[in-house]
Amino acid sequence: MSQTAVADLFRPLLGDNRCLTDADSCQRYGVDWTKVWAPAPAVVLLPETVEEVQQIVRLANEHHVALVPSGGRTGLSAGAVAASGEAVVAFDRMNKVLAFDPYDRAVTVQPGVVTQQLQEYAEQQGLFYPVDFASAGSSQIGGNIGTNAGGIKVIRYGMTRDWITGLRVVTGKGDLLELNKGLIKNATGYDFRHLFIGSEGTLGFVVEATVKLARQPKDLAVLVLGVPGFSEVMNVLHAFQQQIDLTAFEFFSDKAMRHVLAHGVPRPFDTEAPFYCLLEFEQLSEAAGDQAMAVFEHCVEQGWVVDGVMSQSLTQLEQLWQLRERISESIAPHTPYKNDISVMVSKVPAFVQEVDGVVQREYPDFEIVWFGHIGDGNMHLNILKPADLPKEEFFSRCNNVSKWVFEIVQQYNGSISAEHGVGMTKKPYLQYSRSPEEIGYMRAVKALFDPNGIMNPGKLLD
Amino acid sequence: MSQTAVADLFRPLLGDNRCLTDADSCQRYGVDWTKVWAPAPAVVLLPETVEEVQQIVRLANEHHVALVPSGGRTGLSAGAVAASGEAVVAFDRMNKVLAFDPYDRAVTVQPGVVTQQLQEYAEQQGLFYPVDFASAGSSQIGGNIGTNAGGIKVIRYGMTRDWITGLRVVTGKGDLLELNKGLIKNATGYDFRHLFIGSEGTLGFVVEATVKLARQPKDLAVLVLGVPGFSEVMNVLHAFQQQIDLTAFEFFSDKAMRHVLAHGVPRPFDTEAPFYCLLEFEQLSEAAGDQAMAVFEHCVEQGWVVDGVMSQSLTQLEQLWQLRERISESIAPHTPYKNDISVMVSKVPAFVQEVDGVVQREYPDFEIVWFGHIGDGNMHLNILKPADLPKEEFFSRCNNVSKWVFEIVQQYNGSISAEHGVGMTKKPYLQYSRSPEEIGYMRAVKALFDPNGIMNPGKLLD
Repeated sequence: MSQTAVADLFRPLLGDNRCLTDADSCQRYGVDWTKVWAPAPAVVLLPETVEEVQQIVRLANEHHVALVPSGGRTGLSAGAVAASGEAVVAFDRMNKVLAFDPYDRAVTVQPGVVTQQLQEYAEQQGLFYPVDFASAGSSQIGGNIGTNAGGIKVIRYGMTRDWITGLRVVTGKGDLLELNKGLIKNATGYDFRHLFIGSEGTLGFVVEATVKLARQPKDLAVLVLGVPGFSEVMNVLHAFQQQIDLTAFEFFSDKAMRHVLAHGVPRPFDTEAPFYCLLEFEQLSEAAGDQAMAVFEHCVEQGWVVDGVMSQSLTQLEQLWQLRERISESIAPHTPYKNDISVMVSKVPAFVQEVDGVVQREYPDFEIVWFGHIGDGNMHLNILKPADLPKEEFFSRCNNVSKWVFEIVQQYNGSISAEHGVGMTKKPYLQYSRSPEEIGYMRAVKALFDPNGIMNPGKLLD
Repeated sequence: MSQTAVADLFRPLLGDNRCLTDADSCQRYGVDWTKVWAPAPAVVLLPETVEEVQQIVRLANEHHVALVPSGGRTGLSAGAVAASGEAVVAFDRMNKVLAFDPYDRAVTVQPGVVTQQLQEYAEQQGLFYPVDFASAGSSQIGGNIGTNAGGIKVIRYGMTRDWITGLRVVTGKGDLLELNKGLIKNATGYDFRHLFIGSEGTLGFVVEATVKLARQPKDLAVLVLGVPGFSEVMNVLHAFQQQIDLTAFEFFSDKAMRHVLAHGVPRPFDTEAPFYCLLEFEQLSEAAGDQAMAVFEHCVEQGWVVDGVMSQSLTQLEQLWQLRERISESIAPHTPYKNDISVMVSKVPAFVQEVDGVVQREYPDFEIVWFGHIGDGNMHLNILKPADLPKEEFFSRCNNVSKWVFEIVQQYNGSISAEHGVGMTKKPYLQYSRSPEEIGYMRAVKALFDPNGIMNPGKLLD
C-alpha cells in the first residue's frame, strides 16, 4: 500500500490534524535516540481515546498496516523507530492523570504521561514515584512499560514492572484487556500484565496504567568512596547492604572520573583511586548517620576504601550526584560506542576484567569507560573513539567488540540488554541471552496476541 | 489407560521406591488442605533430577497421562488434588539448597525446599526470606511459585513473585527453559518467569528457582489498636503509611477478637471496639518509636483510635501477633465457610459493608468473621455454621453466599482469589474476575506450553 493510501485509511477516523504526513512530523516521530535508521513512517497518528486506538488496530489488521507505538522516543535500541512506511501511533494526546486515591497510594494514568510529570504529580500528593533515569523529562510511561525501564534507584525500588498494578491494553488482535485492575493480590491465573511489561510494543498497545506510589524518601545522604580494586567494590557493597537499605549504589572508573572532572564537576576528594562508588541512603535519624560512618570506617580499616566524603547538605548531595550523572555528557564528544549489559552481581569483577582484557588486547588504542548500577549487576560499557580514527572504521571495529562482549555475556549467563531493550539494535544478538526454545515460545506468544504481525514488526523478533 | 499401566510406564525410569501405588501414599499425595475431593491418583512419582522430570513429561506426552505437580499440598483451592487417576509428581526428593552467594544475596533452590527451611537458611546467612504465612512449615517453594503465595508481610515485601529472580522450568512440551537466570535487570523480551509464577502447574514444572533475600528486619515493634469503624481503619492505615514503612497492617473484627480471646489469647487492652488493627514496623531508632507514638496520638485525637498498646519486648510482640495468627484455629470448631478475596484498598469499607448486608439479610443466623491483610486489600471472609444447622444445609447455603460475594467482587473490580489460587474450587467462578477474552488468551497460552494438556488438567481452566 502506498504511503498516501496508508494515511488516507486513518483520516476519516482521526481527521487531518491527528493524521500527520508532513516531513517534520515524520522525521520527529520516526526516530528514537539511536539515530541510526532513517525515519520513514507513512503517517503519524495521534489517538485521543482507547476506542480510537482500537479502531486503528482494527483498520491496521484489515489492511495489513504495520503500527509502531511511540512514546517519548528516548529509547537506545531503536524499538520505536519507524523506518519502513509504518503508521506511528503516538500517545502525546493521551497524557492525562485519570485518577488518584490516597488510600490506595495509586495513580491511574494514560500512556503519554511523561515520567517527570508522574514524579511531580506523586510529589504533589506527598508521595514518590521512584523509577528515575536520565530521560525522565521526555520518556513516557507507556514506553517505560514497554521496555520495563530501570534506572538509578533499582537497588531499592526495583524496575517499572514493580510499580505497575494494573494495565489496560489493546492487543494486536484488537481486544481490550484489563490486566490486574490495580490489585495488590490477585491469584486468578496467568498474569498477562507482566507479559506486556517489557514486550516493546510487539503484543499490543498499553492504553492505561495504574501505578503504585511510595512514601517520599527523607533526609537522603550520599557517600562517594575511592576504592582500590573491583573486588573491594564488592566488599563495600556487601558491607553497606547488610546494615543499610541503600537507595543507590553506583560505580564508575577513574577514567569516567577524569572525564567528568574535566567537564567541570568539582573533585570530591584529593586521593585518586581506580574505582569510585556512590552510595545513597535515607539518614532517617542521627543513629542512621552514625551507622553509615561506622561501616565506612570498617571499610577503610579493611583497606577496601582509600578516601571518601559524605554529603552534609542537599546542595552537596546534588553536587556529588553530578559525578555520576554527568559522565554520559562528558564523554559524548568522543563518539562513544555504548553497551548496556548485566550479569549477576557476584560475577561483575571477573566479567569486567574479561571484557577489558579482550578489548585492550585487540584494540589497545581504545579507551574503555565503565560506569553503572553495580548494585544490580548492570554496567554501561563505553568505548571512546580515538581522535584520529575515522568514524566508519571505529564503528566497524565496534561491531567486533559487540560480538566479543556478547560472547562473554553468554558465558557469564548475563543479559545483552539490561535495561534498554532489544528493538532492532540488539535483535541480531538475542540468542546470546535467550535459548532457541525460549525464542520459539516468544514467537508463538507473539502470534497469539498479534496474529497478523501488525504490532511493531521487525523489533525484538524477526 | 489402567492405573496399573500408568504406574508401569514410569517404573523403569524411577524404580519401585519412587513410583508409589500403595493406598497410604495415594491418599497422602492426592489431596491438599481442601479435603473435598477424594484422592485417586494412579501413581505417585518422586523424581530426583531435572532429567527425570523431563523424562516423566516425555512419557506422559507419549501416553497421554495427566500429571499433577505436588509440593507441600497446603493449598486451599484444590490445585494439587489428584482425584482422577493422574500421576502425581512430588518434589519431596528435590529439596536441596543448590547455591548461595553473599554478594548476590540470592539462593538457588530445588522446588521441594520447604518455605521454613528457606527462611532458616536465609537467617543462617544473616539474611531474610520475607514471604511468610501460616503453612510455612509444610509448603514448598515450588508450590509457592505456582500460586504466587502472599501472606502477612506483603505490604512491605510483596508476593513470592517479587523475590524470584530466576526459574528453571520444564514445560508441558518437555523443553527445559532458563528464565531470567537470577538477573536483576534483563530487558531481552517476554518475561516468561512471570507467566509461570502463579500458573498453578498448568504450563509446566518449576525444577529450580533463584530467590533474592533481604536484609534482616531489626527491632520489630507491634501496635494493636481498637478502631471505631471501617473508615477509621482506612484513616489509621493512611496516617501510618505516610510516615512509616509498615511491615504488616492486619485487621480483624470484634467477632474475631471474641473467638481468639475465648481460645486463650490474652486481651490486649480493656476497651472494646468494633475493629482492631495490628501494625508492625522496624523501630530502627528511638526516634522511630517516638514517631510511631506521635502518629498514634494523632489518630486518638482524631477519634480514629479508641485504645491501643505497643509491644515493649519480643515476648509481648509475639503475644500480640497471636491475636491475629490464632484466629483461624479459634474458629475452626465452627466449620467455617472461608473465602479469600481482594479489592483495591480504598474500596474495602464499602465492599465489606455490602457483603455483610447481603449475608445478614439472607441468612440472619450466620455469624460473619472478617480478618485479613487490609493493607493489601485482601480479606478473609469466614462464615461460621450455626450450631443447630446440619452441615449439608450450611454448605448448600454457602454456595449461594459464594455467588453473592463474587458478584459483589466483580462489581468492585476485585479478585475472587487474592492469594489461594483458582485450582478446582474457584474455577467455576473465574469469569467474575477475568473477562472471556482474557480466559481465551489463557487457554491459547496454555496450549502453547502444554499442547497435549497433560499439565494439571482440570485446574484453573477446563
